[in-house]
Amino acid sequence: MLEKLYALLENDYSEMVDIRRHLHQYPELSFQEVTTPKYIAEYHEKLGHEIRTAVGGRGVVATLRGGKPGKTVALRADFDALPIDEQNDVPYKSKNPGVMHACGHDGHTATLLVLAKALNKLKNDIEGNIVFIHQHAEEYMPGGAIAMIEDGCLDGVDVIFGTHIWATSPVGEIGYRSGPLLAAADRFHIKVQGTGGHGAQPHLSNDSIVIASQLIVNLQQIVSRRVDPLETAVCSIGEFDAKNAFNVIADSVQLSGTVRTFKEEIRNKMDREIRRIIEGTCLAADAEYTYNYVKGYPATVNHQAETEFVAALAPSVPGVKNTVELAPQMGGEDFAYYLEKVPGTFFMTGAELTGREKTYPHHHPKFDIDEKGLLVAANVLGAATLNYLENKGVELAHDSELIKVND
Amino acid sequence: MLEKLYALLENDYSEMVDIRRHLHQYPELSFQEVTTPKYIAEYHEKLGHEIRTAVGGRGVVATLRGGKPGKTVALRADFDALPIDEQNDVPYKSKNPGVMHACGHDGHTATLLVLAKALNKLKNDIEGNIVFIHQHAEEYMPGGAIAMIEDGCLDGVDVIFGTHIWATSPVGEIGYRSGPLLAAADRFHIKVQGTGGHGAQPHLSNDSIVIASQLIVNLQQIVSRRVDPLETAVCSIGEFDAKNAFNVIADSVQLSGTVRTFKEEIRNKMDREIRRIIEGTCLAADAEYTYNYVKGYPATVNHQAETEFVAALAPSVPGVKNTVELAPQMGGEDFAYYLEKVPGTFFMTGAELTGREKTYPHHHPKFDIDEKGLLVAANVLGAATLNYLENKGVELAHDSELIKVND
Amino acid sequence: MLEKLYALLENDYSEMVDIRRHLHQYPELSFQEVTTPKYIAEYHEKLGHEIRTAVGGRGVVATLRGGKPGKTVALRADFDALPIDEQNDVPYKSKNPGVMHACGHDGHTATLLVLAKALNKLKNDIEGNIVFIHQHAEEYMPGGAIAMIEDGCLDGVDVIFGTHIWATSPVGEIGYRSGPLLAAADRFHIKVQGTGGHGAQPHLSNDSIVIASQLIVNLQQIVSRRVDPLETAVCSIGEFDAKNAFNVIADSVQLSGTVRTFKEEIRNKMDREIRRIIEGTCLAADAEYTYNYVKGYPATVNHQAETEFVAALAPSVPGVKNTVELAPQMGGEDFAYYLEKVPGTFFMTGAELTGREKTYPHHHPKFDIDEKGLLVAANVLGAATLNYLENKGVELAHDSELIKVND
Amino acid sequence: MLEKLYALLENDYSEMVDIRRHLHQYPELSFQEVTTPKYIAEYHEKLGHEIRTAVGGRGVVATLRGGKPGKTVALRADFDALPIDEQNDVPYKSKNPGVMHACGHDGHTATLLVLAKALNKLKNDIEGNIVFIHQHAEEYMPGGAIAMIEDGCLDGVDVIFGTHIWATSPVGEIGYRSGPLLAAADRFHIKVQGTGGHGAQPHLSNDSIVIASQLIVNLQQIVSRRVDPLETAVCSIGEFDAKNAFNVIADSVQLSGTVRTFKEEIRNKMDREIRRIIEGTCLAADAEYTYNYVKGYPATVNHQAETEFVAALAPSVPGVKNTVELAPQMGGEDFAYYLEKVPGTFFMTGAELTGREKTYPHHHPKFDIDEKGLLVAANVLGAATLNYLENKGVELAHDSELIKVND
Repeated sequence: MLEKLYALLENDYSEMVDIRRHLHQYPELSFQEVTTPKYIAEYHEKLGHEIRTAVGGRGVVATLRGGKPGKTVALRADFDALPIDEQNDVPYKSKNPGVMHACGHDGHTATLLVLAKALNKLKNDIEGNIVFIHQHAEEYMPGGAIAMIEDGCLDGVDVIFGTHIWATSPVGEIGYRSGPLLAAADRFHIKVQGTGGHGAQPHLSNDSIVIASQLIVNLQQIVSRRVDPLETAVCSIGEFDAKNAFNVIADSVQLSGTVRTFKEEIRNKMDREIRRIIEGTCLAADAEYTYNYVKGYPATVNHQAETEFVAALAPSVPGVKNTVELAPQMGGEDFAYYLEKVPGTFFMTGAELTGREKTYPHHHPKFDIDEKGLLVAANVLGAATLNYLENKGVELAHDSELIKVND
Repeated sequence: MLEKLYALLENDYSEMVDIRRHLHQYPELSFQEVTTPKYIAEYHEKLGHEIRTAVGGRGVVATLRGGKPGKTVALRADFDALPIDEQNDVPYKSKNPGVMHACGHDGHTATLLVLAKALNKLKNDIEGNIVFIHQHAEEYMPGGAIAMIEDGCLDGVDVIFGTHIWATSPVGEIGYRSGPLLAAADRFHIKVQGTGGHGAQPHLSNDSIVIASQLIVNLQQIVSRRVDPLETAVCSIGEFDAKNAFNVIADSVQLSGTVRTFKEEIRNKMDREIRRIIEGTCLAADAEYTYNYVKGYPATVNHQAETEFVAALAPSVPGVKNTVELAPQMGGEDFAYYLEKVPGTFFMTGAELTGREKTYPHHHPKFDIDEKGLLVAANVLGAATLNYLENKGVELAHDSELIKVND
Repeated sequence: MLEKLYALLENDYSEMVDIRRHLHQYPELSFQEVTTPKYIAEYHEKLGHEIRTAVGGRGVVATLRGGKPGKTVALRADFDALPIDEQNDVPYKSKNPGVMHACGHDGHTATLLVLAKALNKLKNDIEGNIVFIHQHAEEYMPGGAIAMIEDGCLDGVDVIFGTHIWATSPVGEIGYRSGPLLAAADRFHIKVQGTGGHGAQPHLSNDSIVIASQLIVNLQQIVSRRVDPLETAVCSIGEFDAKNAFNVIADSVQLSGTVRTFKEEIRNKMDREIRRIIEGTCLAADAEYTYNYVKGYPATVNHQAETEFVAALAPSVPGVKNTVELAPQMGGEDFAYYLEKVPGTFFMTGAELTGREKTYPHHHPKFDIDEKGLLVAANVLGAATLNYLENKGVELAHDSELIKVND
Repeated sequence: MLEKLYALLENDYSEMVDIRRHLHQYPELSFQEVTTPKYIAEYHEKLGHEIRTAVGGRGVVATLRGGKPGKTVALRADFDALPIDEQNDVPYKSKNPGVMHACGHDGHTATLLVLAKALNKLKNDIEGNIVFIHQHAEEYMPGGAIAMIEDGCLDGVDVIFGTHIWATSPVGEIGYRSGPLLAAADRFHIKVQGTGGHGAQPHLSNDSIVIASQLIVNLQQIVSRRVDPLETAVCSIGEFDAKNAFNVIADSVQLSGTVRTFKEEIRNKMDREIRRIIEGTCLAADAEYTYNYVKGYPATVNHQAETEFVAALAPSVPGVKNTVELAPQMGGEDFAYYLEKVPGTFFMTGAELTGREKTYPHHHPKFDIDEKGLLVAANVLGAATLNYLENKGVELAHDSELIKVND
């Protein structure tokens, strides 16, 4: 059955490219998606899948029921774009000024739609069901995943797989990691309120610049002293806003920064220790403060069995040239929420576009991909799906025979 | 002769007010004065004084030669205004939008002109000469004094007296201080150049906000550890400019601040130690920097004998109700340069305008004065001048008889 | 053959205990071992092994040549004790006051000797050779391993196995970890040289306590900002020696501290950044310094194949109840040097002594072990040795049949 | 009368030397004085003065009543010695091992006794009374002054004069200063209580060395930011006691330091701000602390009129070669307490011993004085006393005739 799937996908590769390029020309911002979910729903409608729209707001969930009973696999693709003005000079350039599919979600969607079409053709032989989760608003907090889950998109789902095409890894490379793959990315805002005055009379004021500087120096001790050295934590202050005349004592200072962690306990500790240090530093300086810690997506923590399952089957999938165990990445993803509910894994699929003067990273106005990566992504997602349903779980036979199912 | 002078001044008080109010309506910014020096020159011209214009740029120097040979006394009044939009609702409100005599230099000029007129009437009896230094551009570095001195305004001068009318001291109060009265007020600019990057990857960047914060903390040690605790020094950072996104590592930070000192050796030490700490802090952080220390006016250091001379004669001057020894003040004045060349003293003459909802300080859009203070200023300057010339110096007789000269 | 080995070891368990207790009573400090290596050499001599003494100083290397040609496995046990005064009230208490086998090296030696005896009985069937490395001076830098290696103890060796009995893990537990298991543990010494003086006159001195405090604060930024957050690094100052009168300015301060890392590049970066921060901090303060970074043992980095080999065979070894993948540990071991030269792995063998009021950790005056752990250690080392030689490497058959060799 | 006094003192100079050398050989520690007060009391007894012993503990107060009614002048000399082992090789070397008159109090006493004898001879002509305050325990907190005052030594006293012979100023020099002459010298002790642990596991400990370092850095901001730059304040940490192994996290740190100020409000602010910074720093670090601020003597603040009085008369006193206005000194004196109760002044009398390889300062084992300074001290104290009584206060006649009284 797998070989059939690969053949179907290979055959429809040009459609996959067409869909991706179409979506690329009509990008829509997070929480403002209208035409994209409509396009997706119509595609699944033609395939005869059960469809729910406006799931958790603007999401689309389509379900393919296999010819035989079995488990349920969910596959997720996000479909929102970014507020970036495209600088690529390509025929499929964004027609929506200031908005761009600069992270590849157009490709994710094209991959999942064509994969749905191919799986649909094999449905009679499929033991179980496949849920296609088309998610809106991955790029902007609080993201679409959490609302879609609350709206039932994971109901009855046994496992979930997702991938991100990766513009800085070569086509053919699959990156996996069991455990934390993507960090929890939070932000915080601090206002240090001193008392303004004349620069010549420090004793009549309360110098908020000195206090805030002291605070930043003190904050270094969280990572250096209070976090287990075997764990990962970052606390960076990105902004120190005290633009005044040279000869005043600043009345207040605004700071903002980011925290990155992989474990909830470390994450909470960071918040707690930042607060403690602010409180103590301001007490020492007789100053006031406000502090606001805003949690972003949690860490994306891949389940071990599901990750090893994908890592084990990937090498025999057409188009996969190598698999690499990734180091944890500091970026965030709201796929994290799905993995808090059901087992699954999120992997990276190489799609680097070579032959340009340089490779542009995600979120860059010149971001683009080698669309061959989409086919690889579809192949791996498809292989994971069929193997999982066939074996009723993530156990691969030792001799790997079940991986290459012949039917 | 002094009694005659006091009477002449009393008599011309209304002219003093008229002149002040006229000038108040036509304020001119530092280094942009045109009509004001013309007005001053014409006034002295009518009195028949020797006149030099465009002295050191835009200054006016008039000389009254007494009927008998003797010493030479210089009296100085500055005449520039400030870039402030007047908020007073008075008939003599500034007619030059955005420019205002908000520091009282209009009053200084009126005082000196009318005093010149009165002294002119006594000139046959005067033993020596009187130089009226009308200075432009006191408010803006590098100030007019230094150029006027280079252009010869102090040539042949034995002593110099000056006063500032003071809007927050009551009419009738004369403030004096031997030694440092007004601080040297310098400014500095520091750029800390790190390497920008993503907030999640501190090790790939060089965090200029942390470095600059560390720098500010380190700078506290100059005053706390490196300056003689019996001396005065202030180093304040007024500006910390790092307005960025919360999740970046700032590429660079701009700092600016002020240094206040009373002694040249301490002042130079401040510059030297700030530089040393920047250099060391940036070396420790492998960062680059630029540092620019801009000297403002030096400290205004009154000469002891001349100050005691004025303090001793002031109590018997009409209109003076009390004299106070001032604490050093942190503001700056380019009268400092005159005192580096010839003996003299600079004192404060109370001119608080009562009966308003509150008293507004110098440089405030609602700054105003009680013009009675101008008469007191003229009396004290006149008494100092005549006593000095009569006694050929600052020695006052014990019984103070010479102070109240009868002729 | 393995079953035979297990039976032989089981049979000689009481001898193992006797040897351990004998050695426990006559502990010898690192680099001062005399009777212990003599004891070891005599034991092997009786077995007829080839023996080299004084290897790299005080080490003993014995070689058992199997009846058939094959590969060469090295097994290592260290035999030095610690400068600790034993507080246990046991019949085999240390008879050398102030010296104690408080880390279990007596047990390591007993394990290896009795294992050698058992293997000796099977020698005709053994395909290859076994080198018993009895190492002196593990506890004290630079350790005995490096000198023994230079003196040839690894010549011809294909693989090395070693274990540490672990007093805080239960008997029956085997802990393994591929990659970095034990940290590189370095130390450093800093002298900050200011200028002493009277506490009332900071400007005439150079306050080394303030400088050193500033330095320590600055050092926090290495871990918080300059080391990849996904890597592990610790920099701790343990000592700040400035014991003076309250009213002086300290002339100098002595600091000492430790650095722990798992990667050589991070380790070198720590040294480099500490130096940079000292240099910059002292430049900022116009102070002098000395800095000395003393490298301890490098990180003990287990080879992946050999580690997985031991982890895979351990569960079927008699006495092993469970195997756990360990987190990296911050302590150091000079087994690290062997692993830099030949493949191998170092694992932990549980030996917790239960039934006491509490469990005492290694290096504690009440440290003791459950000697049953020694038998488990011998079993696992023996199983690894015979499997390796039989299979000519670390490949275990899938059905694990070769592990339980029947002969 | 003054000329007579000078002649009497000149005549008894050898006795003054004898007394000083006698006392020098039998020094007694603060609060342990026995033979010295007995010696003093007997001397006054022979003169027929009213005597009180054991005043405030071990002080002696003698009163000379003049022949005519008038005001009452107090003169104070302290008489305790120091725990120093004399290293001078002189005939009058201390015979009390480990105890030495290394601050000149022997000389103060000799001066006052011989002056009392001389004044006694003039008593019939004296208008008023003279109280000789011989104070114990100046060198050791809380000092003898406060208890003697409580015991009535200042009852009925109108003015007090005192001097310190000064081994580093030349004979003939009188140093005076109106206002603060000697600083308040306080000390403080801080214990920072963290949680000890292994240097490799900072997150399981609470690093008291880092906290204390941070604290010391933070403390710099008191002087740099919170004290009026025109005022004087010093806060120095002299001791940082954390002598541990290099690889531990220190459980606690002991700090001690000194604060020097001239004004009570600044002094109290220092205490308050140190406490605030400790509290905030420890809160930020989740650590405990103890803090103890021990006030030493307050600042010695000379009264203006009395100081100017002495400064004005000193130049015409035999032996006085010059008078200098002193800068404030950072050392402390419990003469401060007398000046809190009655007007008066404390001045310095030069007594440098020349002709040695170098001049040794007070409290040095080789401290010694030129005894000629004692005669100068007696002359000035005597002149101040007689002038004050004659003029019924500190008004000196303009022509200074009263200073050189002829009788």
